Parts: sequence; structure tokens; C-alpha cells
Amino acid sequence: MADDKKLTTREADFSAWYNEVVLRAELADYSPVRGCMVIRPNGYGIWERMQRALDDMFKATGHQNAYFPLFIPESFLHKEAEHVEGFAPETAVVTHGGGKKLEEPLIVRPTSETIIYSMFAKWVQSYRDLPILINQWANVVRWEMRTRLFLRTLEFLWQEGHTAHVTHDEAEEEARQMLGVYSDFMEGHMAMPVITGQKTNAEKFAGALRTYSCEAMMQDNKALQAGTSHNLGQNFAKAFDLKFQAEHGGQEYAWNTSWGVSTRLVGGLVMTHSDDNGLRIPPLLAPIELVIVPIYKSDDERNTMLDAADRVMQKLLDWERRDPGRLRVHIDDRDGIKPGAKYYEWELRGIPIRMEFGPRDLEKNQAVLVRRDNREKRPVSLDTIGEDVAELLMRIQDDMLIAARERREHNSIRHRISYDDFKDLMNGKGGFVYAGWCGSATCETEVKSETKATIRVLPDEEFRSAEAPATCLKCGRAASAEAVWARAY
Amino acid sequence: MADDKKLTTREADFSAWYNEVVLRAELADYSPVRGCMVIRPNGYGIWERMQRALDDMFKATGHQNAYFPLFIPESFLHKEAEHVEGFAPETAVVTHGGGKKLEEPLIVRPTSETIIYSMFAKWVQSYRDLPILINQWANVVRWEMRTRLFLRTLEFLWQEGHTAHVTHDEAEEEARQMLGVYSDFMEGHMAMPVITGQKTNAEKFAGALRTYSCEAMMQDNKALQAGTSHNLGQNFAKAFDLKFQAEHGGQEYAWNTSWGVSTRLVGGLVMTHSDDNGLRIPPLLAPIELVIVPIYKSDDERNTMLDAADRVMQKLLDWERRDPGRLRVHIDDRDGIKPGAKYYEWELRGIPIRMEFGPRDLEKNQAVLVRRDNREKRPVSLDTIGEDVAELLMRIQDDMLIAARERREHNSIRHRISYDDFKDLMNGKGGFVYAGWCGSATCETEVKSETKATIRVLPDEEFRSAEAPATCLKCGRAASAEAVWARAY
Repeated sequence: MADDKKLTTREADFSAWYNEVVLRAELADYSPVRGCMVIRPNGYGIWERMQRALDDMFKATGHQNAYFPLFIPESFLHKEAEHVEGFAPETAVVTHGGGKKLEEPLIVRPTSETIIYSMFAKWVQSYRDLPILINQWANVVRWEMRTRLFLRTLEFLWQEGHTAHVTHDEAEEEARQMLGVYSDFMEGHMAMPVITGQKTNAEKFAGALRTYSCEAMMQDNKALQAGTSHNLGQNFAKAFDLKFQAEHGGQEYAWNTSWGVSTRLVGGLVMTHSDDNGLRIPPLLAPIELVIVPIYKSDDERNTMLDAADRVMQKLLDWERRDPGRLRVHIDDRDGIKPGAKYYEWELRGIPIRMEFGPRDLEKNQAVLVRRDNREKRPVSLDTIGEDVAELLMRIQDDMLIAARERREHNSIRHRISYDDFKDLMNGKGGFVYAGWCGSATCETEVKSETKATIRVLPDEEFRSAEAPATCLKCGRAASAEAVWARAY
Repeated sequence: MADDKKLTTREADFSAWYNEVVLRAELADYSPVRGCMVIRPNGYGIWERMQRALDDMFKATGHQNAYFPLFIPESFLHKEAEHVEGFAPETAVVTHGGGKKLEEPLIVRPTSETIIYSMFAKWVQSYRDLPILINQWANVVRWEMRTRLFLRTLEFLWQEGHTAHVTHDEAEEEARQMLGVYSDFMEGHMAMPVITGQKTNAEKFAGALRTYSCEAMMQDNKALQAGTSHNLGQNFAKAFDLKFQAEHGGQEYAWNTSWGVSTRLVGGLVMTHSDDNGLRIPPLLAPIELVIVPIYKSDDERNTMLDAADRVMQKLLDWERRDPGRLRVHIDDRDGIKPGAKYYEWELRGIPIRMEFGPRDLEKNQAVLVRRDNREKRPVSLDTIGEDVAELLMRIQDDMLIAARERREHNSIRHRISYDDFKDLMNGKGGFVYAGWCGSATCETEVKSETKATIRVLPDEEFRSAEAPATCLKCGRAASAEAVWARAY
């Protein structure tokens, strides 16, 4: 981070700003392989905390982890008609192994429905073997032409949940439950508010009966599809002969769900919270929550202040009424770098609290805490610093969610809008528009080709407008549902 | 696990026994892709606990996680001469992506030295940027012809540490440190004793200066290479132009290390500990440490016993003087399965302690604990069950290591052995033979072709015999080192 020139501002060029934040905060880097990124420790540290929190939530809802092969026989992809249509154009294909041409090419998994349900078919005989509730943490490959760090890369890391059930209703309940888990995680940990709802047929997963999605609004007012959960119906069960002996006799096909979130979430976090000074990480996901910057001039002062910083760190680590785990503290004791330069760097990296700590503070038995989110400064007594820091971290976490939610609401339109105004809006500042939809794919396609906006979701009840829109945004006929329209990543 | 016929015994057919344990304990399964396995929840649960323990140890020694691309440009592999010779024959090659033939084929990583050091070269300018201490959890692919579940599969999961240093000595210290971390983990968590030492040139990693290894003895007296740590010298730094500005001026090449362990460890755990009744998992790695099997006949008894089991479980979960985390308890409340069948199943799955708990036990305010490792049974009072279980788990963990170490020593020969006797031994019951080696690759090759035995390591000092062997096992000339010979997986 030798480079200390200012970041491009969000206002000037949002896309350039995003790339600069990701690169200069050392979250990720370009790799020598086109479209593949390297996730650097600062970025991977955030992903690891996301993984841990999600994994705990998956286990609390009865899921177990497993691992399935990276390679999928090409013929498997072809067994489900919509699925192959959706994914075949994006595949990476292994044609040679061990120096020989393969009899059947292998696809590097773009998603694992086919290989996983072929195994479920082997494991399930009777209704007693159901449900199966499995999750996999893995890498997947989709051959994208236009890539963006975290948001769209050839290879990405994700989790994919895969379940099998006796009935449609049980699968539906599972798909909805996991959408709720995602939404809780995104709001509770990422401080990123989301709207949940159902995708239209045009936007659903290739092979699904119904797709549900969490949609977040980025600071450029575009939507980010942050996580999806699919009720796959019996489509894959039929393609892979996943049958079971029913309780009252006879063979039935199982009902599947799948659901996933990926390293794209790290991109979502950056675009939700960061500012023109760099990253802002919500405390729960910050690899470091508080950085102590000791201030000193002479060698004597240096020793005194580093000792004092150590004592403060120990106090913070010992602060016990914190759940879960210990506070993640770091002392920046690098020599030859001025405090101001350190502040700049830790701001760029988005650490939630910086503690400025000089000889005068020590004399007064205090330290100065600076919030990264709103840059508020305040001195706190060293006697109560454990509880003060723990409280402040909770407050920051809450305030970041509140700020993001206010921004989203400020850029959402719920009143009646003419299609011409809608076009202007989508070509201008963008945002979420809640408007009526007649249910026709034609209207949806036309809006997309004219404005690049799509229906993000048919929102769940809690997100719907008080008064249901009467007419379709596009054709003016009677609306069959309310839809959230936006341009999206 | 409907199949309740007896396992093949180790005596009758060790290899068949191994496969049956892995399949019937549902650790893994064959997949539709040749040579690739599916790791099922029971096996993945063990791997997850291994990962967590190792990851904590890596972080405690200053390493951070990151993630590098799955694909490596074919040309990269060719930049280090020995490396390409070692790995090129085993590669899986992606030739097509997004429906088009690629200009340069991509290798699915068999290991990541090349791609990682090309990135280090981009990040390192000055000695101040060193050391870099990075670890990656990832999948890798090596095109093996003969595969075995966990032990040798086309795709496997592993971690690979990669570091860069200013000096040879610092790299050497790192390589040795990580060997120590592995050895501590294998003995402390897996209860699998290992011998550490250096590999001969014939057996070292393709591209390394020196390779160190942890070698364990399986129950068929064959060696398993359980983890390796390499001092890579400047070989990759020179190939990828990983240079830095030295403290006193001038450009120097960095010194690298890499080190890895893989899902092969799960196979090592099975072959170290399991018996003719199935798996035995050391408590620290067991996804479930204790299973409660309530015994009842009538519905009334059922309700009483399940309630009582719940209370016991709560007591065990609340037992606080345990570090780290809570006890992992499961109540087997399945109806329609007799207690005996449940015992059989939990033995097969290797759960360290089974608690048998019937109405008579409840009357006496006790439960019966049965150890999986030695099948010892004893009643314990429900009043002290928390501490009794915690203590017993520690004892089981210790006893499993002691038993494995005794078995290894029993099957190791440290006295002088003629080459003819050595051949008989290697063609017979096998084992570890500590013997002199003249240092010539010819002797090593001849022994290998005549007996299939190889030098596993030139053992570290603590493992060497009290009296250094004087002559070479093969040629009778003066020995330059003591070597541990064995057949290996």
C-alpha cells in the first residue's frame, strides 16, 4: 500500500472506485489466468468469517457438510433439459487426463445438482432415508466473458446446499427456510439489507420449479443478487432416477432444493458500505476489529507507549462478556511510518475502530477511539475500555445496517411512475422501482431491452407496498403482481 | 447401513477390510467419475475437525489464508524443470472454455507453486515485504491410474502452505517448523505416531531443495507418507523472477517453502486405529464423541428414558471445564431398531463412547459407558457424569496413541539384518527397518525393484537408533546415514 494517492470517488466513476478499493485494500488481485482472481488474506479473512457464520447457521438448521467431485461427466449435464441449456455455454471442459484424450469429456462443475442427485439416487431407497440435508463448500467455474473482481469471475468460491424430501411442501419449506437464513446473515452479519422474493420464470435457475432470491442495493443504485434458493421440484429426481419407496407403498420421485451464496458477497459488502476513503467492514466480519496506533517520538516514548498498548490489548482480550470469541485486536507497531500514514492505511482497509494512543492520553488514563463508519472520535477511560469497545462495535454494526437501509429506501420508488419516467430513471440515477406487472414475459423482455432493468423479485409480503399497484408498468393492463425493477450486476 | 454382515477381517484381506470400513461407516463413496470420490458427512466431519485444528495451528504460527486460481497456464508448469517432469504426466487439461478452444491449455492445479510464486513476484519489491506466510485450503487434481478411497484419488482436498523468505536459513527454519506442526497434530489429534526426517533425492518433491516428511505405520505394517514440508530453495524464485531489494542493496532471489497435508489423513486415521468391528475415531476428531442409546420396551418406558437421556445430554453439554468447546453428544432415539443393532452401528462408525442407558440404570442413578477403543464397560453415577466423560475421552485419546506407538515399535527392526532376511521380511509381514545406507541412488533403486521397499526418511535425531548402523543394507559398504526402509502406500 505504498500508493497513497486518493481513490477515484464513487461520484466520478463508481466502477473504477470499486476496483481501486478491492486492489488497494488488498482484498484481491488479478491473476495470470484470464478472469480468475487471487483472493488475498485481507479478502479471504472476510470470506472466512462469512463461511464460519453461515456454516454455523446451516448446522443449526440440521445440515451436514460433504464433498462431491469437481468433475462432472458431460452426459450428466444433458439429462435435465433446461439445466444444460443454461449452463452448457459457460463450461470449462477437460478433454485430456494423464497424457491421454478422455473417452468422455469432463465438465468442471458450474454447479453440482447433477453429480449430487446421481449420488442421492444411490443412497436413497425408502422414505426413511429422507430428508437428506447436505451442504458443500467448493469452487465452481463458469466461463464468463466479462469479469469483475468478486462480482463475476471465471472461478469462484461458494457453498451449495442440496436437499431431498418426501413431499413438495417439505421442499418448499426448506427452500424458504434457507432464503431466511441468507437474509438473516446478510442483515445480521453483513449489515446489508435485502429484499426477498420470487424470481420470474425468465430469471429463475435453469432447472428449477421456483427460485427465491435476496436482492441488495449497491451504492450506485444497482441491484446485486446476493443469494438464491431453489425449489427444484422433481426435475432432477426424474433426470437422475432419485426415487424412494413411499410410506404407504409405491415408488415416488423425491423433491429437491438447492441454495447458494458465493464470494460475490465480498463484492456486495464493498459496494454496500465503502466510501471515498476506502473499505468499511462491519465489525462481525472484520478480521481485525480494532487497531491500536501508538503515538511516540523518542525511543523512550516508544517503549512506554508500546508497553501501554500491550496492556490495553490484554485488557481487551480479557474482556469476557463478549459473545462469540475474543476481540480481534492488532497493534500497529511498525517503525518508520507516521501515525497519520497508519490512519490512512487502516481507513483504506476498513477496520471498524482505530485507537489513537499517545503519551498525553496515557497521562490522562485514556485513549481516543475513532469509528471508521462515521469517523466520530471520542476519548474513553482505560478503566472501562473493554466494555466501551464491545458496545461501540455493536453500535457500529447496527448503524451500518441502518445507514444502508436508509440509503436503499431513499433510492426506492413506490409511487406510481409513468413508463417514460421509469426509462429516464433507469438511464439516469437508477434505483429500485416497485411497480405493477401484468405477468407477461413480453413486457418483461421489452423493458429489459429498452432499459436494461429486470424484475429482481416479486417481493415477499413484508416488502410489498401498502397499496398493491393496479396496472402493469409497461402495458398498462391489469397487474397480476407487484414487481421490484432495477438494473443489476 | 442396512447391511449388517461382518466386515472382512484385517487378517484375511487388509485392503478389502479398509474399503469396507470406509464404505460401510459412510466416510466416502465411489463416484460416477473414475478415480474421484464423494466424501460423505461422516468422513467430511472428521476432515472438518482436522482442518479446524490445523488451521488454528497455522494461524498461531503467523500464517494467513488466501486463495489462488484452480487453473494454471500450461507454460507455467514448464518454468521449473524438475517440477514439470514430476507433474506433467499426471495433469488434467482444460482445452475448451465457453464453447471455444483455448489458445493456451489450462492445467487443473496438481499443486500451486507456480501460480502462487508468480503472484508473490508481483507483490514483493523489498526485503520489507518478506516474509510472506500464506496457506490455501483447496482441491487439487493428479491423474492417478490406480486409486483408493482417501489414499489416492484423482481429486483430493488439501492445504498447501507457501512462504517466501529473505534467507535460506529462515526458509529452512520455516520448513522444519511446519513439519513439527504436522507431527504435533498427527500425534496430538489423530493419535497417529509419526517418524520425521528428510527424504532422499529420489523421493523428494519435484523442484525442492530438501523434502521433510512425517511417516506413519499402518496396521498392515506399510508406511503412509502423511505430510511433507519442502525447502524449495531459490528454484521457483528464479523460475518466476521472485526478487527483492536486499536490506544492504542489490537484488536477491527469495527463498521458498511449501508444505501440505490432505484428505489422505482420513485414510491414515482409518488404517491406524480401526479394527474388525469397524472404525475407531480419536475423540478430538470425532464428529460425535458420545452417543446415548436409551433402552426401553413399553411406550411409557420410552418416554421416561428419552426424557432422562435429554437431561443427561443437557448435563454433558453444560459441563464447563472442557476446552475447547462443548461435548459432542447424540441421542439415538430411532424407533424400530433394537439397542443391539444400534450398538453395532455406532461401533462400525467409530464413536469413542457409547452410553447404554436403561430403566434399571436410571433407578440406580447411573449409566453404563462403553469405550470403543478397548470395549471396556463401566457404570458411572449420573451425578458426576460430566467429569467422568471428559476424563474418559482424554484417556481414550491418550491410550489410542500409546497403542499405535506400541504397535509401530513392535513392528520396527532396529538390529542388524541381512539383505536376504530383509527381502523375506518385506515380502512377508513388512514393517519399518532401520538400517544403514551408503548414500548411493543405485542401492536405493535396486532395493526398491527387488523388494518394493523405499527409504521413507533419513530419520531425525530423536528417531535414530542408539548405535548408528555401520554398513549399507544393500551393498555392505560404509553407511553414510541411517535410513528407515518400508513398503509404502
